[in-house]
Amino acid sequence: MSPPFTIQPGPRPQIRIEEVAKRARVSPATVSRVVNGRGKYSAETRERVLAAIDELGYVPNTAARSLAQGKTGVLGLLLPNISTEFISSLVRAIAASAAEAGYDVLLSVRPEAPARRLVGRHNTDGVLIFGHYVHEADLQQLIHQKCPAVLMYQSSPADVPLPSVIIKNASGARAIVGHLIEAHARRRIAFLHGVSESEDSTTRAEGYREALAEHGIAVDPRLMRRGFDAREARAATLAWVREGADFDAIFAWCDHAAAGAMEALRAAGKRVPVEVSVVGFDDAPSARHLEPALTTVRAPTDGVGYRAVQALVDLIQTGKAERRIELPTELIVRRSCGCDL
Amino acid sequence: MSPPFTIQPGPRPQIRIEEVAKRARVSPATVSRVVNGRGKYSAETRERVLAAIDELGYVPNTAARSLAQGKTGVLGLLLPNISTEFISSLVRAIAASAAEAGYDVLLSVRPEAPARRLVGRHNTDGVLIFGHYVHEADLQQLIHQKCPAVLMYQSSPADVPLPSVIIKNASGARAIVGHLIEAHARRRIAFLHGVSESEDSTTRAEGYREALAEHGIAVDPRLMRRGFDAREARAATLAWVREGADFDAIFAWCDHAAAGAMEALRAAGKRVPVEVSVVGFDDAPSARHLEPALTTVRAPTDGVGYRAVQALVDLIQTGKAERRIELPTELIVRRSCGCDL
Repeated sequence: MSPPFTIQPGPRPQIRIEEVAKRARVSPATVSRVVNGRGKYSAETRERVLAAIDELGYVPNTAARSLAQGKTGVLGLLLPNISTEFISSLVRAIAASAAEAGYDVLLSVRPEAPARRLVGRHNTDGVLIFGHYVHEADLQQLIHQKCPAVLMYQSSPADVPLPSVIIKNASGARAIVGHLIEAHARRRIAFLHGVSESEDSTTRAEGYREALAEHGIAVDPRLMRRGFDAREARAATLAWVREGADFDAIFAWCDHAAAGAMEALRAAGKRVPVEVSVVGFDDAPSARHLEPALTTVRAPTDGVGYRAVQALVDLIQTGKAERRIELPTELIVRRSCGCDL
Repeated sequence: MSPPFTIQPGPRPQIRIEEVAKRARVSPATVSRVVNGRGKYSAETRERVLAAIDELGYVPNTAARSLAQGKTGVLGLLLPNISTEFISSLVRAIAASAAEAGYDVLLSVRPEAPARRLVGRHNTDGVLIFGHYVHEADLQQLIHQKCPAVLMYQSSPADVPLPSVIIKNASGARAIVGHLIEAHARRRIAFLHGVSESEDSTTRAEGYREALAEHGIAVDPRLMRRGFDAREARAATLAWVREGADFDAIFAWCDHAAAGAMEALRAAGKRVPVEVSVVGFDDAPSARHLEPALTTVRAPTDGVGYRAVQALVDLIQTGKAERRIELPTELIVRRSCGCDL
C-alpha cells in the first residue's frame, strides 16, 4: 500500500497580485481590471496578464472579488434530496443550462441547512428553489433581501410574487384520466396521491376530479389513497385489493408510484392492463421499461430546468423576469392503459 | 398574463451584526462567535442569538467569513459535461455523501473554465476531479497551492501524488471477456474502446488483451475500433458488418456503446446473442432494460462518489488521505452474452 497523501501544515502559499503585475509589466490595478473584466485594457495587455497568471499559478481571490463586485458566477440550487431519477434529470438540465449561461451551480441538498445559508449574497448570485421545500417566511425574506430567486414546480404564494416555472399538471391529469374513460371504458379509477404540500400532487388530483366530473362519474373517496413513492403505492394498492375495493384502473400521481402499484397488482395476481389499467405521470426514463410499458404524461423536466435558469439569469442581469411560466404536458400512450393489446 | 416580477434597483438591504447583537442583548463579538461556531458561549446565549438572527433575517456574510476562516463548507466538483446517465448517478452519489458530511457541492461543468477558477481557496474547501479532465500542470498547481483535491476514475500521475479513487477495470474486463470465451466459446471478440485519454477505457483494453492472451487468442487489431458513445459504436459496428469482418462477440468499453452496437447489429439483421454476443461495462441503470438484457460489469458509481467525498473530507479536516483507493467490480450476467437461452 502506498503511504497516505498528506498536505503539509501551514498556510497555503499565495501568489500576490503584485508578482503577476511585475511579470506582465503592468500595474496591479491593470491585473485587477483584466481579472474582473472591468475597465479598459488592450487585447495585448490582456494576453500578457493571462500568460503571467498561468505561469505563476495566480488564483484570483474570488471571495474578495465577490465582496467588491457582488457577483459570484454561481447559481444556488436548493433540493430536499437527490435520491430520485427525476431529481437527477432536473439537476442535469439545470447544470447544463447554467453552464451555457456561464454559471456554476451550488447544490445544497441539506434539508437541515436554512435557506439563508445558501443565499448569503456572497455565495451565489441567486437561487433556484425546488418544490415546497422552503417556507413562505423564508421566501418573503428573499424578496426583502432583494435576492434573485425562482421557484420550480411550485406557484409563488399570492403575497410572495417570485417568478415560478410550473407544468400544466391539471390538464395533463385530465387528459390521461379522460383517456382511461373514453378509450378503455374505465369508470372505477383509483388515484394515488403524493404529499399534501406538493403542488404537483394537488393539481394532478384536481385534474383527476375534473375529468371524472366531465364524464359524470362521482369521486369515490375510498379510491383515493396516499402513494407518495413506490413503497407507499405498493402498500396502498395491496390494501385496496385486501379490502375488495371495486376499481378497474389506477392513476398514480408519479411514475414511481405507478411502478409500485403495478408490482402490488402482480403480487396479488391481478393482470395489468387486462383487469386493471395503471397509468402514471412524469414520463421518467424508466417508464418505458416497465412491463407493460407505462402510459403516462410527459412533464418536460429539461424544459423546467432550462426556463428556470433563464428566468433567474434574467433576474440577476436585468432585475426583471416573467412572473409565471407554465409548460405544457403531453399524454404518452403505451400499453399499461390497455392500448395496443 | 401577470406583470413581470422585478427587483427594485439599489443595494440589497443589509441587517447588520450590531442589530442582531442588540436584539439578543449580547455583544457583536458574541454573535460572531455563535455564527462561526467558535470560542465560548452558553447554550442559552446561542439560543438567543439564533432567535434574533431568525427574527431579523440576518444573513451572515459568508464571503467575509470565508476570508477570515478559510472555510466555505463547499466541495467543488469538476465535470467535463453532465450529459450521461452515468455522470448523473455520480453527481447524485457525491451530493448525497457531501450532504451527510455537512458540505454543499459546487458543480462546475464548464469545460472552458480553468480549474483554478473553481479552486480559488475562498470558493471551496477542496475539489473532486472527474477523469482526465484537468491537465497535469493544473494538478501540480493544486498541490503547490495546498488545495485538497481527489481524483476519480483516474490514477494520479507519478509526480502528482494526489489521492485517487478508481475501479478495478482490468480485472472486470478480464472476467467478462473470459466469460465469453469459456461459457460461450467465443474467440473472435471485437472491442469498442473509448477516447485514448480515458483511463477507464485504456485499462479495460488491457484486461481485454490479457483475457485473450490467457486463452491463447491473438489480438486482431482489425477488431479494435473506437466507439466512445452509442453513436460512434453504431457506426463502428456497421463498418465491421459492411467489411465482412469475422467476429462472434463485441465487448464495448461502456454500456452506452454496447447499446449502440446492439442497435447496429439489429439494423444489419444479425441476431444478438445467437449470432453475436454483446457485452458492456458499468451496469448503467438502462443496461437491464436493453433487449436482450445486457451482460456487463458493475462499476460501483455510488461507491466511488462516497469514497471520494470521504477522502476529500479527510484531507480537508486532517491534511491526510489514503493515496489510492481501488474498488472491486463485479460480473453481471444477463442474456446478451448468450446465457439463459
